[in-house]
Amino acid sequence: MPLQRYCCTIEYDGSAFAGWQAQPRDRTVQGVLEEAAGGILQAPVRMHGAGRTDAGVHARGQVAHFDAETALDEYTLRRALNARLPDDVTVRALGRVGADFHARYSASSRAYVYTLSLERRSIARAYAWHFFGRLRHRVIAEAADAFVGTHDFTTFSKAPSQPQAHAFCHVFEAAWTLGDGQATFAIRANRFLTGMVRALVGGLIEVGRGHLAPGDLGDLLAARDRTRTPMLVPPQGLLLERVEYDSSDFALVRRILTGLRAAHGLPEAPAGADF
Amino acid sequence: MPLQRYCCTIEYDGSAFAGWQAQPRDRTVQGVLEEAAGGILQAPVRMHGAGRTDAGVHARGQVAHFDAETALDEYTLRRALNARLPDDVTVRALGRVGADFHARYSASSRAYVYTLSLERRSIARAYAWHFFGRLRHRVIAEAADAFVGTHDFTTFSKAPSQPQAHAFCHVFEAAWTLGDGQATFAIRANRFLTGMVRALVGGLIEVGRGHLAPGDLGDLLAARDRTRTPMLVPPQGLLLERVEYDSSDFALVRRILTGLRAAHGLPEAPAGADF
Repeated sequence: MPLQRYCCTIEYDGSAFAGWQAQPRDRTVQGVLEEAAGGILQAPVRMHGAGRTDAGVHARGQVAHFDAETALDEYTLRRALNARLPDDVTVRALGRVGADFHARYSASSRAYVYTLSLERRSIARAYAWHFFGRLRHRVIAEAADAFVGTHDFTTFSKAPSQPQAHAFCHVFEAAWTLGDGQATFAIRANRFLTGMVRALVGGLIEVGRGHLAPGDLGDLLAARDRTRTPMLVPPQGLLLERVEYDSSDFALVRRILTGLRAAHGLPEAPAGADF
Repeated sequence: MPLQRYCCTIEYDGSAFAGWQAQPRDRTVQGVLEEAAGGILQAPVRMHGAGRTDAGVHARGQVAHFDAETALDEYTLRRALNARLPDDVTVRALGRVGADFHARYSASSRAYVYTLSLERRSIARAYAWHFFGRLRHRVIAEAADAFVGTHDFTTFSKAPSQPQAHAFCHVFEAAWTLGDGQATFAIRANRFLTGMVRALVGGLIEVGRGHLAPGDLGDLLAARDRTRTPMLVPPQGLLLERVEYDSSDFALVRRILTGLRAAHGLPEAPAGADF
């Protein structure tokens, strides 16, 4: 049987996981997926995820690919995976893709949502952060515009676990919405730095409390200074909503990055690197 | 200070509770509420709930009343209760009521929602039952009409823990709705027998699978036979949505019950009993 590449959409409740990325001792989403797939295929399987979510972060539409030699059809393979997976991980869809598809490098954007519960709640409390205090939501909603476009997000990140060529990200959309007893921050970008969404929400909350002026966010971005990172809000409010594979977004970001390479002397992206 | 009656609206995640009703050993919602209130008021407090939900059943709008002598205002009392309560119980609202208000006996109706997840999910899986298989949802939606009105629901109940005067309930509304990957059964009635919603959903599922004809539900009702109770669906899909105190509903049900007493020789309701 020839080697075939499969792509799947994965939902998980991050509460009991030490994040996406496989680790020797901790329980991780990649780890349980690789164990389930390895058990079915009777061979070691490597799952390549589109985004490495932190410990405690949830996903409704994580995407991963893996290669396998199997006679199982897609429906049966998905059923078999779900039968072996614990309750807190679900393969929602699974299909065959070409060998040139890469869950991470072919992705043109990732969309995250952060949920703040503005009142104490007990139902679904594992999927929101309860924020107690007043926030000027209209001011926050306007301030969030500062993130849209191409910026170096060093200030709004944790030190990366692996060295990164650069810290530029292109934010397509960033929106703060006040709903029924909760507020959500939805953001879509070509890539995210470690801890980035949680630091952006932390910065917006400082604005909403009046501890920062809305204009300060642009100054913080320009500072590219990790000693000025705002508080990171807790991970349980964060959800990876979906990963997109849109060639027009991809081309746009490629053009922007080419310009930045010339202007800032960024190193060339290695073959197949996300940028 | 005079004794004052307080009424509160309570949300809870039933996953880790042995139901509403206080028990000597098990963790119950009434138990943790009485402990929290007793600690604040430095006196034993009895919480009277509107509905005794089973182990594992959730509530967004349970109502309870209690009597207390305290100088604390309502806002402070609610804050103090929530500060002492575990994460899985929240007092969402609290107010003073007259001494003639009774959370259970003054209630004119209770509204429950049962959620079936039609696909495997990991997020919020604690609040739905995953049903795997085909269901004829349109047939179920029509069959659910059989429950509306006044019926003896003995067949659709578990043996009660306390003797009941009669098993008649007046169902105001019962609706089966197919949504995005899930189905919900919403029902509002003046009262519910033990296990009733879960048995009704069990009966509807048998209809949806084709194991029962839609007309069989009426026959099962008429049989008043607990040996013919359908399967009880699991508790985690069930949520007490709200309790209503509407005097026109109350008057309607009182009229119906008076007629039933004459026709069926039901015993007189004791003073203050729910009927």
